[in-house]
Amino acid sequence: MDIKLNNHFLDVKETYLFSDIAKRVKAFQAANPDREIIRMGIGDVTLPLPASVTSAMEDAVRQMAAKESFHGYPPEYGYDFLRNAIADHYKTIGAPSITPDVVYVSDGAKSDLGNLPDILGDNPVIIPDPVYPVYVDSNLMNGRKISFVAGTSENGFLPEPPADTDIEPSVIYICSPNNPTGAVYSYEGLTAWVNFAIKTGSLIIFDAAYEAFITEDKPHTIYEIPGAETCAIEVSSFSKFAGFTGVRCGWTVVPDTLEAGGIKLSKFWARRQATKFNGVSYVTQMGAAASLSGKGLEDCMANIAYYKRNAAALAEVFTNKGIYFTGGVNSPYIWLKCPDNMGGWDFFDMILNKYGVVGTPGEGFGENGTGYFRLTAFGSYENTLKACEFFKTL
Amino acid sequence: MDIKLNNHFLDVKETYLFSDIAKRVKAFQAANPDREIIRMGIGDVTLPLPASVTSAMEDAVRQMAAKESFHGYPPEYGYDFLRNAIADHYKTIGAPSITPDVVYVSDGAKSDLGNLPDILGDNPVIIPDPVYPVYVDSNLMNGRKISFVAGTSENGFLPEPPADTDIEPSVIYICSPNNPTGAVYSYEGLTAWVNFAIKTGSLIIFDAAYEAFITEDKPHTIYEIPGAETCAIEVSSFSKFAGFTGVRCGWTVVPDTLEAGGIKLSKFWARRQATKFNGVSYVTQMGAAASLSGKGLEDCMANIAYYKRNAAALAEVFTNKGIYFTGGVNSPYIWLKCPDNMGGWDFFDMILNKYGVVGTPGEGFGENGTGYFRLTAFGSYENTLKACEFFKTL
Repeated sequence: MDIKLNNHFLDVKETYLFSDIAKRVKAFQAANPDREIIRMGIGDVTLPLPASVTSAMEDAVRQMAAKESFHGYPPEYGYDFLRNAIADHYKTIGAPSITPDVVYVSDGAKSDLGNLPDILGDNPVIIPDPVYPVYVDSNLMNGRKISFVAGTSENGFLPEPPADTDIEPSVIYICSPNNPTGAVYSYEGLTAWVNFAIKTGSLIIFDAAYEAFITEDKPHTIYEIPGAETCAIEVSSFSKFAGFTGVRCGWTVVPDTLEAGGIKLSKFWARRQATKFNGVSYVTQMGAAASLSGKGLEDCMANIAYYKRNAAALAEVFTNKGIYFTGGVNSPYIWLKCPDNMGGWDFFDMILNKYGVVGTPGEGFGENGTGYFRLTAFGSYENTLKACEFFKTL
Repeated sequence: MDIKLNNHFLDVKETYLFSDIAKRVKAFQAANPDREIIRMGIGDVTLPLPASVTSAMEDAVRQMAAKESFHGYPPEYGYDFLRNAIADHYKTIGAPSITPDVVYVSDGAKSDLGNLPDILGDNPVIIPDPVYPVYVDSNLMNGRKISFVAGTSENGFLPEPPADTDIEPSVIYICSPNNPTGAVYSYEGLTAWVNFAIKTGSLIIFDAAYEAFITEDKPHTIYEIPGAETCAIEVSSFSKFAGFTGVRCGWTVVPDTLEAGGIKLSKFWARRQATKFNGVSYVTQMGAAASLSGKGLEDCMANIAYYKRNAAALAEVFTNKGIYFTGGVNSPYIWLKCPDNMGGWDFFDMILNKYGVVGTPGEGFGENGTGYFRLTAFGSYENTLKACEFFKTL
């Protein structure tokens, strides 16, 4: 064919991170068939869905089998019962002004994060480093100019806004609690970003996918910060909160007060979703709604508490050993500085061979991840404790 | 905010088609509270999912509730069991060369049709008129130059390729069986398009969402046509075949033989989906796989037969009355010329007031829809027969 392709796709680096990891683990397993492997690399949940949630889903499936209760095309922006439940959730986390009509239900935060650039023009993009690679990749695919703000041990992996506010209006990504570092912005830290965005006419895309892990007094949503509704879109998800990685449901909040050039961003996002998306499975939405109230909510929070206990156990070990790390408290992630100035891959090989523990080299999340390492709390408590015993001997 | 938006979104016409229809129906109902309304306007299925399919989904939900059988993040391009089942389906419809690895499972054909332009450059676009509005809108959102090929009563609403092959390589949309006209390309008709695409270096995006309705000897897939694997992507769906409008599952075939500028399109599509999408619910995929074999397939085809009987009843009435129409045989749609040269909206008002029957004015599907009308076969047999009795008195 002689058609033109979107050659910006060639700018996206092919990542071999997880296939490299898989290869090394496979080789280790072949050489050591009797050694146990403790997987602390995956960012996927492992606890099953609570019965309080699956019973709502089973019920929904049965409704689909009867003519009177069958559900065809779902509303493009989500069923009212779910949009209402999400808006109610915002009431409990300090953002009562988020109404159901500004909540757009989707098949997951990754889709929304990837699709949001559709409605934006050619703005410069500001992205923290290290961070979840989807922000970078989906902007490279549009040919956007990206600059990074550095997360380092000096700022606790919570980069501050640039001092220079004489910049072109930009699209700013913030992930808090952060993947991979587990670092969470304070009210002051996030307020600084909101003020920077307002001053520079910029838009913040706030990724709150790990919000449910916050137990300290830190912002759960950017809409706790005054002014955010004039400069921020928030993307969130049932993946980590309700264990929905395999069920696929998320949402995006686009307040009606977000305007650029006299145009409401909600108008463009609504049109994007109505044109290029057709809503989320009724079964999925029924399960999502069940996770947000009563027994479902209780059970999901119990699962979060289980993961948080794992994280706390790891955090205790590294604290006692005097190893620098972030996360471990309001997050399922521990982001540690590799001892003895080792590189992430060297540390990977060492703990795999010595302990049979698999983690993720920080190098996979950006330049500032060099020499760092991510451990996740999504494994079993028993395995986490085994890993803790190993790490005590580091 | 001072950021730039994607102002191509302003080029998308706001459509009030279905809200206009809803308003007129509401007014009619208010004025005539005792009159029965027969809805033949919606393109949504109405029969419930077969128990053979929902039992697989219930089973999948129960698996999600137990640690040993829990499923986290799905594979980005679909579970092997479903990709294999779809590839097996292609064997039964004359395209045995479609292998599981070129099948990309998604949350629906509308998403894929909307997202495919992501991987393409700034090519001119050729779209039939009348047609499903998503092709036009998703290309306008990218600022693409669109030209139309006219469907008319002269070509049976199956536009032929332009005679001039000295054109810029283009992206060509074909929908067969067509929504809204129900017209289906013959082998010769589709071969002409494949040859045109090869000659001009163009790409065909083939929408096969209504394939399951074909019972005559017409191509079910573009890959029945020699050469198509070097010039065509096919998008298809479980929505109409398995009644999955509310469950959300479709797929796209991107053969590895599709290349432009030395780049495999499959590489770009795989990257797009891995970056901006995170796979389809395990529950949904289990249901989709169940619909493709054994009792599930039998039950889904029985539902299709039910809708086809409705379509045949309508077709018989219009044939006997000498009213020109397309569809009604390999499609759930009847596309008829409004009698007495009426416009679509006048005909809409007339049959609503006279018979209480609701349909869709052809004007909603493009310029060449003027004076035409779409009726759908997705209602009940009883209501369809009532409507038939009314139409006999036209």
